[in-house]
Amino acid sequence: MRKSELDTPCILVDRVKLLDNIRRYQGYADAAGIALRPHAKTHKTPEIARLQVEAGAVGVTVAKLGEAEAMADGGIRDIVVAYPIVGSAKLARLIALARRAKITVACDGIDAAASLSEAALQSGLVIDVWVEVDPGYGRAGVLPGADLDRLASALVPLQGIRVCGALVFAGHSYGAETDAEREAIARNEAGTALLAAEALRGFGFPIESVSAGSTPVGRFASAMAGVTEIRPGTYVFGDVMMVKAAALAIEQCALTVLVTVVSRPAADRAVIDAGTKVFTMDGEDSAIGTGRGYVVGHPAIEVAWFNEEHGILKLPDGERGLRVGDRLEIVPAHCCAVVNMLDELHVLDGDRVGATWRIAARGKVK
Amino acid sequence: MRKSELDTPCILVDRVKLLDNIRRYQGYADAAGIALRPHAKTHKTPEIARLQVEAGAVGVTVAKLGEAEAMADGGIRDIVVAYPIVGSAKLARLIALARRAKITVACDGIDAAASLSEAALQSGLVIDVWVEVDPGYGRAGVLPGADLDRLASALVPLQGIRVCGALVFAGHSYGAETDAEREAIARNEAGTALLAAEALRGFGFPIESVSAGSTPVGRFASAMAGVTEIRPGTYVFGDVMMVKAAALAIEQCALTVLVTVVSRPAADRAVIDAGTKVFTMDGEDSAIGTGRGYVVGHPAIEVAWFNEEHGILKLPDGERGLRVGDRLEIVPAHCCAVVNMLDELHVLDGDRVGATWRIAARGKVK
Repeated sequence: MRKSELDTPCILVDRVKLLDNIRRYQGYADAAGIALRPHAKTHKTPEIARLQVEAGAVGVTVAKLGEAEAMADGGIRDIVVAYPIVGSAKLARLIALARRAKITVACDGIDAAASLSEAALQSGLVIDVWVEVDPGYGRAGVLPGADLDRLASALVPLQGIRVCGALVFAGHSYGAETDAEREAIARNEAGTALLAAEALRGFGFPIESVSAGSTPVGRFASAMAGVTEIRPGTYVFGDVMMVKAAALAIEQCALTVLVTVVSRPAADRAVIDAGTKVFTMDGEDSAIGTGRGYVVGHPAIEVAWFNEEHGILKLPDGERGLRVGDRLEIVPAHCCAVVNMLDELHVLDGDRVGATWRIAARGKVK
Repeated sequence: MRKSELDTPCILVDRVKLLDNIRRYQGYADAAGIALRPHAKTHKTPEIARLQVEAGAVGVTVAKLGEAEAMADGGIRDIVVAYPIVGSAKLARLIALARRAKITVACDGIDAAASLSEAALQSGLVIDVWVEVDPGYGRAGVLPGADLDRLASALVPLQGIRVCGALVFAGHSYGAETDAEREAIARNEAGTALLAAEALRGFGFPIESVSAGSTPVGRFASAMAGVTEIRPGTYVFGDVMMVKAAALAIEQCALTVLVTVVSRPAADRAVIDAGTKVFTMDGEDSAIGTGRGYVVGHPAIEVAWFNEEHGILKLPDGERGLRVGDRLEIVPAHCCAVVNMLDELHVLDGDRVGATWRIAARGKVK
C-alpha cells in the first residue's frame, strides 16, 4: 500500500527518521557511558520499544502498569514503572507481571511502599524499588534532605522490596530556553539524583541505579556523570515542542499526521479533518511553522485553531491554491499526546506503507 | 460491583443525573415545538444515544462517519453526519452505511457535493444533504449571501443527492457570558439558518430541515422559532465549561472521573493518577471549583495542573488530610474530550455499578 491510499486522519512515522532518532540518542548515552532506558509513553508501541532495545537500550520506562503489561506482552523484558503503584487491584497485577518480566517500581512515600512490601511478601517475590526524589519540579517525588531521610528510615524494616535505585525528573527542562540552561538543569538533576543515592546508601540500601534525564537534556548526558541511566521519551519521534527545546530539527521529526482538506469556506481559510481529537490541545502556539503545528512543505500555513474534529488553517498569500481533497502532513505540537488518540500508526518506507503497528499501550491509564 | 471496587482512573456516569439531563433538554425542545437531535460526539456510546431516542430525540448528530457507523451498529436508525464527506474510501463507507440507516450529510462546497453526487449515482441511492452555512463563527460553512447563492446554483444540476436541509453552528455561543447574550446568539443563529433555508428554497430545493443550536443556547430553543431541529451534545453529561455557560448546575453534572491519590509529596500538594491522558488539556482554569476541574465534595481543592499521567492538586488549609489511596471524583473541564480518552464508562445507580458501557465511537476520527 502507498501513502496516497491511506484514509485520513492517520499517524505516519518515517522509518528512516525514526531509526536515526533512536540511534542519535543512543549515541548521546553511549558517549557518556550511561545506559538508555527510553520512556515508552511517547510511542506506546512494542515494535518501537524493540527497535530501541535492538539499538542498545537496556529496557524501557513507562508511567502506568497497563503500559508495562503491553510492553511485556510485546517482548520487552526489563521495565521500570516510574510511578507509584497504589491499590490492591494494581498490586495484584504488578505481582503477576513481575513473574514474567523484570519490573522495577518507583516510590516516593511510605504508604505505597508498605502496601507494596505486603503484597510482595504474600507473593514470595522481591520487588525492586527506586525512590523518586523531587529535583525542584514540584510534581511527585520526596524532597531531598530531611523528608528523604525520614522515608529511607521508614523503608529500612520493609521486607519484600529491594530499594536499589534513585530516580528524579526535572520537568522544568522543557521550559529551558538555551543550551546553557539545559546543561545546567542536566547537572542539577544529576546532582540531586547522586546525592539522593548517597543518602539512601547511608541507610544501607544497595543503590545500583541512578536515573534522570529527559529529551531536552538528553544531549547533555555527558554532563550527568555518575548517573547510570537516562529516560528520554519524545526524542523517538520529535515534535514542535522538542524542536523549540533544540532537541532536534523540524526535518528530523519522524511523526506526522496525514490530513485531508474537507472545506474551503474562504480564500484565506481551509478546514482539515483533524482537530483536538487527533492533535489534542497540548502545546502552545509556536513560531516553528506557525500556530499549533508545522505543515510539512508549507511552513507559512498557520495551524490556527482546533475544534474537536475541525482543524482551521489560515492561508497566507501564495498558499491559497489548496483544494478540498488535498492532503497535508503536519508535525504536531506534542507527539506523545497525539499517539494516545489513535489505535494504530503507519510506518513509511519512502511513500510505501511498510508496516501498520497497533499502539498497544494507548489509553492504558490504569 | 460497587464503586469502591472499581480501579482508577475511570469514568463514572450517574444514571439519575444522566436521565435528568436527557429529559430536561428534551423538555426545552418539546416546549419550543422543535425536534431534538443530540450530538453524539459527547458520549460516543450507543446505549446513551438509545436513551436519548427513547426520551424523544429524532435520532443523533455525529461529526465523523466512523461515529455514524458505531451508532448504526448500536441500533440508531436516523443519523446526521454534520461534516463533509471527502475521498473515495469514505464515500464507499457512506454508501454502505446508507443502505442500513437513514443518513444525512452536511456539505459546504461544490467539490464535496459533486463527488458525493457521483458516488450516490453509481450506487443507485439518493443521499440527503444539508447545506452548512456559517453564522459568523468562522469554522466551516458557506457564507450566507452571494457565496451561498453560488453554491446553491451549482448544486441544482447534481443528481443522486437531495438538498433538503440547512445547518448552522454558532460556536461562539460557548463564549457568551450572560443569558441575554446566549438568547441573542440563539436568535441570530436561527435567523441565519432560516434565511439560508429560504435562499435554498429559491433554487427549488425542498428544504424540510433547519438545524441549529448547541448546549449553551439549548435553553433558548423557544427563541428559535422556525428551526426544526436543535443539536446540543454536552448537556447529556455537563462539565465545568457548561456550568460556566449556565447550561446546568455543577450538582447536575452526570460525569465524573474517579481518581486515586498516589503521592503526598508536600503538605499542600497531592498527586492523583490522572493527567492529560484522561482529562486532556481542554478547557481553561475556572473559578467553579478551582483550576482545571471541580473536586466533588471538596470545592476548595485546586486542580492545579496536569502532566500526562499526573494530576497536581493544591490543598488549602482544611483539606490536607488526604492520604495516599484516598479516592476523589472530579467533574472535568470538558466532558466530550474525556470520554474520547478511555474505552468504557461505568454507570452508577447510587454506589452500585449498574452497567459498564463500551465507548464504541471513541477515536473514530475517520
